[in-house]
Amino acid sequence: MTSETGNGNGIAPTMFDRDLDRGPANFRPLTPIDFLRRAAEAFPERVAVVHGPLRFTYADLAARCRRLASALRKRGIGRGDTVAVMAPNVPALLEAHYGVPMAGAVLNAINVRLDAATIAFILDHAEARIVIVDRAFGKVMADALARCSARPLVIDIDERHPAPGEALAPRIGRMDYETFLADGDPAGPWGGPADEWDAIALNYTSGTTGNPKGVVYHHRGAFLNALGNVAAYQLPRHLAYLWTLPMFHCNGWCFTWAVTAAAGTHVCLRRVDPSLIYPLIAEHGVTLICGAPIVLNLLIHAPDDQRRSFSQTCRVLTGGAAPPSAVIAAMERLGFAVTHAYGLTETYGPAITCFPQADWDGLDLDGRAARMARQGLGNPTVADVRVVDAATDRDVPADGATIGEILLRGSTVMKGYLKNPKATADAFRDGWFRTGDLAVRHPDGVVEVKDRSKDIIISGGENISSLEVEEALYKHPKVMEAAVVARPDAHWGESPCAFVTPKPGVEPPSADDVIAWCRDRLARFKVPRTVVFGPLPKTSTGKIQKFVLRDRAKALGESR
Amino acid sequence: MTSETGNGNGIAPTMFDRDLDRGPANFRPLTPIDFLRRAAEAFPERVAVVHGPLRFTYADLAARCRRLASALRKRGIGRGDTVAVMAPNVPALLEAHYGVPMAGAVLNAINVRLDAATIAFILDHAEARIVIVDRAFGKVMADALARCSARPLVIDIDERHPAPGEALAPRIGRMDYETFLADGDPAGPWGGPADEWDAIALNYTSGTTGNPKGVVYHHRGAFLNALGNVAAYQLPRHLAYLWTLPMFHCNGWCFTWAVTAAAGTHVCLRRVDPSLIYPLIAEHGVTLICGAPIVLNLLIHAPDDQRRSFSQTCRVLTGGAAPPSAVIAAMERLGFAVTHAYGLTETYGPAITCFPQADWDGLDLDGRAARMARQGLGNPTVADVRVVDAATDRDVPADGATIGEILLRGSTVMKGYLKNPKATADAFRDGWFRTGDLAVRHPDGVVEVKDRSKDIIISGGENISSLEVEEALYKHPKVMEAAVVARPDAHWGESPCAFVTPKPGVEPPSADDVIAWCRDRLARFKVPRTVVFGPLPKTSTGKIQKFVLRDRAKALGESR
Repeated sequence: MTSETGNGNGIAPTMFDRDLDRGPANFRPLTPIDFLRRAAEAFPERVAVVHGPLRFTYADLAARCRRLASALRKRGIGRGDTVAVMAPNVPALLEAHYGVPMAGAVLNAINVRLDAATIAFILDHAEARIVIVDRAFGKVMADALARCSARPLVIDIDERHPAPGEALAPRIGRMDYETFLADGDPAGPWGGPADEWDAIALNYTSGTTGNPKGVVYHHRGAFLNALGNVAAYQLPRHLAYLWTLPMFHCNGWCFTWAVTAAAGTHVCLRRVDPSLIYPLIAEHGVTLICGAPIVLNLLIHAPDDQRRSFSQTCRVLTGGAAPPSAVIAAMERLGFAVTHAYGLTETYGPAITCFPQADWDGLDLDGRAARMARQGLGNPTVADVRVVDAATDRDVPADGATIGEILLRGSTVMKGYLKNPKATADAFRDGWFRTGDLAVRHPDGVVEVKDRSKDIIISGGENISSLEVEEALYKHPKVMEAAVVARPDAHWGESPCAFVTPKPGVEPPSADDVIAWCRDRLARFKVPRTVVFGPLPKTSTGKIQKFVLRDRAKALGESR
Repeated sequence: MTSETGNGNGIAPTMFDRDLDRGPANFRPLTPIDFLRRAAEAFPERVAVVHGPLRFTYADLAARCRRLASALRKRGIGRGDTVAVMAPNVPALLEAHYGVPMAGAVLNAINVRLDAATIAFILDHAEARIVIVDRAFGKVMADALARCSARPLVIDIDERHPAPGEALAPRIGRMDYETFLADGDPAGPWGGPADEWDAIALNYTSGTTGNPKGVVYHHRGAFLNALGNVAAYQLPRHLAYLWTLPMFHCNGWCFTWAVTAAAGTHVCLRRVDPSLIYPLIAEHGVTLICGAPIVLNLLIHAPDDQRRSFSQTCRVLTGGAAPPSAVIAAMERLGFAVTHAYGLTETYGPAITCFPQADWDGLDLDGRAARMARQGLGNPTVADVRVVDAATDRDVPADGATIGEILLRGSTVMKGYLKNPKATADAFRDGWFRTGDLAVRHPDGVVEVKDRSKDIIISGGENISSLEVEEALYKHPKVMEAAVVARPDAHWGESPCAFVTPKPGVEPPSADDVIAWCRDRLARFKVPRTVVFGPLPKTSTGKIQKFVLRDRAKALGESR
């Protein structure tokens, strides 16, 4: 063994570069597959998966994933092939997070709320060779397959434990998932990438316009974000984790892998329904769930007969829009502790987290909730977070007021967009991932997201954060949900227009009530000039569709 | 941006390899420097360091490390240069763990118990360009410098807060550490490696014979082991960690970096002394310490007036020899919870940990202690652990009885030995790191270390684990410490020879007492034929020096 390696940048080698090469003993491509292998070796008898009456130990889960990888290999699936799965949070989808990459292939977990045309686009763009579909989505998948040119092998997940009242479509595939597994070898090779930069997953953004983009994850980022989650969110060994967050959403923010790294129990869930969630939290001692703000709202507004009390504190990690103070307070009364994070599909889920700070101790609930509504500080695997002025690309002052775009870089940023070098180059311009989200930097360094670039309202040349107006609206005792967008204005250019869903079972407030409420809490130019009542349109992941509301606001004509 | 990358192994590129390259936005060389940068940005006002009456916040610590890096750069120190530090666990040594690699250089933390000749060998072998030395070790360092050909710049750490009664030598350097720091820029560049395979630290093994070997660590391994420690040992955010383990020992098992990753408080300690340790644990709410078994013994046998009770549970991570059941039980009575791990300098410290298993719940203290004395299962960053037969290199059966050598591989195995390609090649033969430690594999997968290869006693062709005999001796109510080695035997080839230190303040047992005690607990061929009373010789890191005892046993002549 004699060799000299520099770092490939023409830097002169030193004595620390000589005869000290990588080899199999000291270099291992990082991959989350190793978390399962370790859990199965270290804790084979621990329960890995709960699904209705089913229990899989880590030995069981490992054997099923090895079967899956082996069965895929037998069908010729290997490095760079795409395996698509469309399913709720059931064991098969969790198993695909290991079995598919063990075969060298790439997992494409499809958002279950998509329409057939979009699914068809995805299957073609991803060049899916296998599709595994839960019978709940057999119909839309059959429609999608009829529209696309891909001709994948279709496998049904024939659910034995549907949620109460759930309708399952007839089977559409060549065989069912358990039959497919039975063909695999439970002691087949564990696999693993030759290069940690190899792709592990492909997640399509739920773009509000145009075709979705395929975000590619690599093994290195998946390993690091999962281990980073265990460290940052302090997952206790053997925790019980309930799957309220869709696994198709950034691979469940990498908790599909992180919970296994902690040798915890994955409690499956077919439907985000408080009447299912509360009993599972109580029965299994669940201490962590994740979800969009809509999950919090569902838990808060669940009918009394669906709620269950539980003795442990259950942490809730929530992303997307900042949870309003009232939501945080209501969750605490129910036994939940809310942590707020920020991330995107492109960052494997959460990249910035609002960790409690020392100076929160003296704050009352409102003060604490206001601070918790911020997005916080970079996770351990995110190297840098900046907030920069759009025009100059220079950091905004940390004054809590000046708005700029959030830029990120680090080891848990995507490989790029599949077959879309232009979008990748735009997103990574000048060596930073440009999120398109607008934020301020507070004097203590904490980042607070103010809006998507396109959601900011510009009235008389002043920026209005729609989130700030929404925060005021959410505090109104009769408001359940609210969203604010720009309406064209004859005088100011734009004015804030509020769409409001009143709480069920109370007399709805009037528009004047709502406007008066906001006047007491906001600068005058930020107060909505228009208030519209009714349900809010949502994306398939529970985000409010502001582009729909913007169209509605435009249709109202100019305010004056 | 158009490109195609395979994995360099001639594997055909797929669509997931095209236009999806590494770049500064999505690829960041892993380095523990980032933990400090993040802690300083996220929690600038948190206390990072406690040393006597001194308090440094994370903002302070970051500024001091940036000063150090900047001052080193001004002296021409850069990539591949060695900076040696010989100091107890004081802030300067912690700062060197960041400031030295920030300058691109390699930290060589020198064992403070070494003699001048060995230090001279190390300074020459490491080609040290800077030596930073605490005044407590000025004399031995001056002797070492007089013997070696290296002519480093010498800087004194002029301790203002010595331990009670501590003697400090006169200064021997060109300037003192604080003066050197003052020359640096507190806002200087953070630095960081261009390649995560770059060296970060150089740790010499305390070889029992021959020259010590220089174990080289890289940034990747340091980052991964630190983050792995946070995850595996569940470090709470902002924990208080007391430095009972020398930072020169595998860089404090990477806790120098892990505690910072958790934005915790490093409580410094100049001397491992129960009269200092107990008050610091109580005063700062310390919840984690690490150390060799000798630290546990010191805490257990501390005089009553030095002990302090504390309300929290303080975890103790211990390595080296398995702690005897009696030690584990005594520690629990004092408010400590012992976790047992196994590792080597070559594995950045702990690589295998004895995590509690589900079936421990029903066990009494003795049963639990017996299980805890095992070494356990691989940490999350260790890819594989094997126990193999020396002759065939095949895995031994998991029967808890067949002894083999522990092999490891993964991302937290050293780069190799500096300027020693033969030793590196031997250690990494066939792609596995060969530890030279002997163990059995239990049916539940857990590994239990039985001995160093050279410590096994072969009597009449039967292997005797010296650890097993020692475990029996430690249970004797009058035994404080014990070590067993081979004595030449006229009939059996070798026989077990016990060296025993009785507990202070009790009437020492007789040799016959001890032998009778062992007969009740061990197979007859394992019972010591010889018992010698007295203090045990120890290495500078507190390990019992079995080679000294072996010499003494040989000097006794053949047993019969």
